[in-house]
Amino acid sequence: MFYYKNLDINEKGNLTFNKADTVLLAKKYQTPLYVMDEDMIRENCRIYKKALDKFYDKRGLALYASKAFSCKEIYRIVASEGLGCDVVSGGELYTALEAGFDPEKIYFHGNNKTKQELIFALEKGVGHIVLDGFYDLEVISEICEEKNIVANVSVRIKPGIDAHTHDAVMTGQIDSKFGVALETGEAKEFLLTAIKKKNINLRGVHCHLGSQIFDLEPFEEAARRLLNLMIEIRNETGYIIEELNLGGGFGIKYTEKDDPIEYASYIESVSKTVKNICNRNDFPLPFILMEPGRSIVAPCGITLYTVGSVKKIPGIRTYVSVDGGMADNPRYALYNAEYEAVIANKAKEPKSQIVTIAGRCCESGDLIGENIKIQKAESGDIMAVLSTGAYNYSMASHYNRLPNPPVVMIKDGEDRVIVKGETYEDIVKNDI
Amino acid sequence: MFYYKNLDINEKGNLTFNKADTVLLAKKYQTPLYVMDEDMIRENCRIYKKALDKFYDKRGLALYASKAFSCKEIYRIVASEGLGCDVVSGGELYTALEAGFDPEKIYFHGNNKTKQELIFALEKGVGHIVLDGFYDLEVISEICEEKNIVANVSVRIKPGIDAHTHDAVMTGQIDSKFGVALETGEAKEFLLTAIKKKNINLRGVHCHLGSQIFDLEPFEEAARRLLNLMIEIRNETGYIIEELNLGGGFGIKYTEKDDPIEYASYIESVSKTVKNICNRNDFPLPFILMEPGRSIVAPCGITLYTVGSVKKIPGIRTYVSVDGGMADNPRYALYNAEYEAVIANKAKEPKSQIVTIAGRCCESGDLIGENIKIQKAESGDIMAVLSTGAYNYSMASHYNRLPNPPVVMIKDGEDRVIVKGETYEDIVKNDI
Repeated sequence: MFYYKNLDINEKGNLTFNKADTVLLAKKYQTPLYVMDEDMIRENCRIYKKALDKFYDKRGLALYASKAFSCKEIYRIVASEGLGCDVVSGGELYTALEAGFDPEKIYFHGNNKTKQELIFALEKGVGHIVLDGFYDLEVISEICEEKNIVANVSVRIKPGIDAHTHDAVMTGQIDSKFGVALETGEAKEFLLTAIKKKNINLRGVHCHLGSQIFDLEPFEEAARRLLNLMIEIRNETGYIIEELNLGGGFGIKYTEKDDPIEYASYIESVSKTVKNICNRNDFPLPFILMEPGRSIVAPCGITLYTVGSVKKIPGIRTYVSVDGGMADNPRYALYNAEYEAVIANKAKEPKSQIVTIAGRCCESGDLIGENIKIQKAESGDIMAVLSTGAYNYSMASHYNRLPNPPVVMIKDGEDRVIVKGETYEDIVKNDI
Repeated sequence: MFYYKNLDINEKGNLTFNKADTVLLAKKYQTPLYVMDEDMIRENCRIYKKALDKFYDKRGLALYASKAFSCKEIYRIVASEGLGCDVVSGGELYTALEAGFDPEKIYFHGNNKTKQELIFALEKGVGHIVLDGFYDLEVISEICEEKNIVANVSVRIKPGIDAHTHDAVMTGQIDSKFGVALETGEAKEFLLTAIKKKNINLRGVHCHLGSQIFDLEPFEEAARRLLNLMIEIRNETGYIIEELNLGGGFGIKYTEKDDPIEYASYIESVSKTVKNICNRNDFPLPFILMEPGRSIVAPCGITLYTVGSVKKIPGIRTYVSVDGGMADNPRYALYNAEYEAVIANKAKEPKSQIVTIAGRCCESGDLIGENIKIQKAESGDIMAVLSTGAYNYSMASHYNRLPNPPVVMIKDGEDRVIVKGETYEDIVKNDI
């Protein structure tokens, strides 16, 4: 009935999430409420860890792509599972460090890091800076010279692969703000330049194809292309690039239309490809990194709302309004992203209606989704929107001055707050 | 050269905004930085006030639609200009009250107000609740009965007008989450029901057609339709609805493509229409309300960024990355909204390039705009994006854990902070 095993229905007919009764959670914490499942987050971390250990001889590391869901507690959890993490701003880095994350296992990304951020990262001992291009290289060289230090870097390469996803989240093709292009020779030129820089230790190459990708082939092809470039550089200069970072972008199942790949078999097949190419070319096996974000946390989160107004427009549609919306989940407004939803207090009943779930923001585009099959919705019902663990809390705004909801973490049925909900006082705290 | 007179170029060749040198502002406060122009905000308030006084015999009030830009100081400014305001949430209401706004002049909107918010509003003496439909009516009646009070209300009506704007911001048509429909008889039924409610003082009807509308005709037609409904109700029941709230949605000039109507002539022509219809039908002149938001603040704001990476992709495009993006201005990501931009420290130079301005968020869709004509952009330049006074600060998120930039207000060339910028400490303040 549900795609994910952390969802179930209890004897009261209420939806449970990692054994916690969602109706009781809504009552205890009020709505809107983000709820996360610690056990499944840990399980997802282990899928990557185990597969890399098994198929790639423990020569790989999964980095949690923390932009998907960033707060102190998530860094603690993924760290305790042995993962590294990637951060894309000083704010994410600050949060990770505050949570005690080992800076050696942090990779700092971004198409436009500021100089202050790079200084902050280097001063804190961040292990790896993923350079986005020549400008980044220039700035980091300058900082390292000033401070007389050496930075471990890799570079983001656009491998020229179109991975069939939403334009706004497609990143591997040449027309992208990210990285240096493989096909124009820019990537090679970058590597040759970086190798010669005195204060730069060029450790790796990186690529990221996009988000919510369902095919194995683009990932395989990207690995092949980057590896061939590493071999070309070795052949021409003798320099061995030691790390191959394959990025993230693994799709998850939001609705029945989505058919994600098995992450472990992806790792198995990419491992084989990499080993084969290295064997054939007598190239030392690179250390492999990958950057799952959504696939670690998305199915581990749900959002609980209270249904308010239910508006039937005869012959047109039924709008079911909830007490949240684009301020806590902007993904429909941004990408027409699709979700499944359940009336938590009627989870046993059949999904007898097709409705549009509207948010409460003063904007027509503020919808959670259109044409969603759901149980009969009435004012006062608790609605659970599923698989909201990624890019919901992390993208939340204060539009209409709506306070950000709290985040509650469930471990084996027990709930605890990991991010406090905002108050009206929080909203005006910086207003003069 | 500029659409708005608050923009100019000084002897250094720097862009000025209400006489303040934007390059110096960027240096003083760092970037990204929101900058607002108090004098023009006041001037825009006066356009509405004066026109209503002149053409409608002082029987009208402009309500600032505060969702466009909400913080304590803006409520103080519009209040001192004699405007009322509309709020769409407890958070906006709280901010207005904290700023000392007269609750009698606050109109509380929203398609899904919560019961707690309605109680909060009534306890604080908010003058007018704009009901969205039967559910709202039910909830407010219940509260008023419990508290033994009478609430002044109006109702949002969908007049069935398609005002040719972006789907996400079009609201006047029947397929909308907002309001009750005129054409199906729902609106009339609502009014007849509300009149009979004991604890409800039905004062007005309201409509809102959408946003960024450039034609006069839809506004006129909406006024006609609502007024005819008011007359119909009077004819059938003798009940006089006293207030006609025409909403907002007046377009502003973001780029050369936009050709907004003159707000004063809109008021002149709508006033005539209303007076004519009232005369012909012997109906007492209603009090008129209108709700400008964008047109009050949008041209009164600019955002200053520092240019980082400039990436030329031969034959494709040039990406100019700035140190902000969809976290401080999500309007391109949401609606492909278009902006003009200027290199503030090269404002005198010709706009010799067409570029894509990219934000710094880890997302391909994070652009400020595509195909924007601008001066030659180099790392370290200060870029001003124009007309960002509405729906930028108010829609800002913490995506990628980017702190919200400060808001600086300029009055006659003098700058002061009105919203403090967030720190990394602010970002993690609620993390456990």
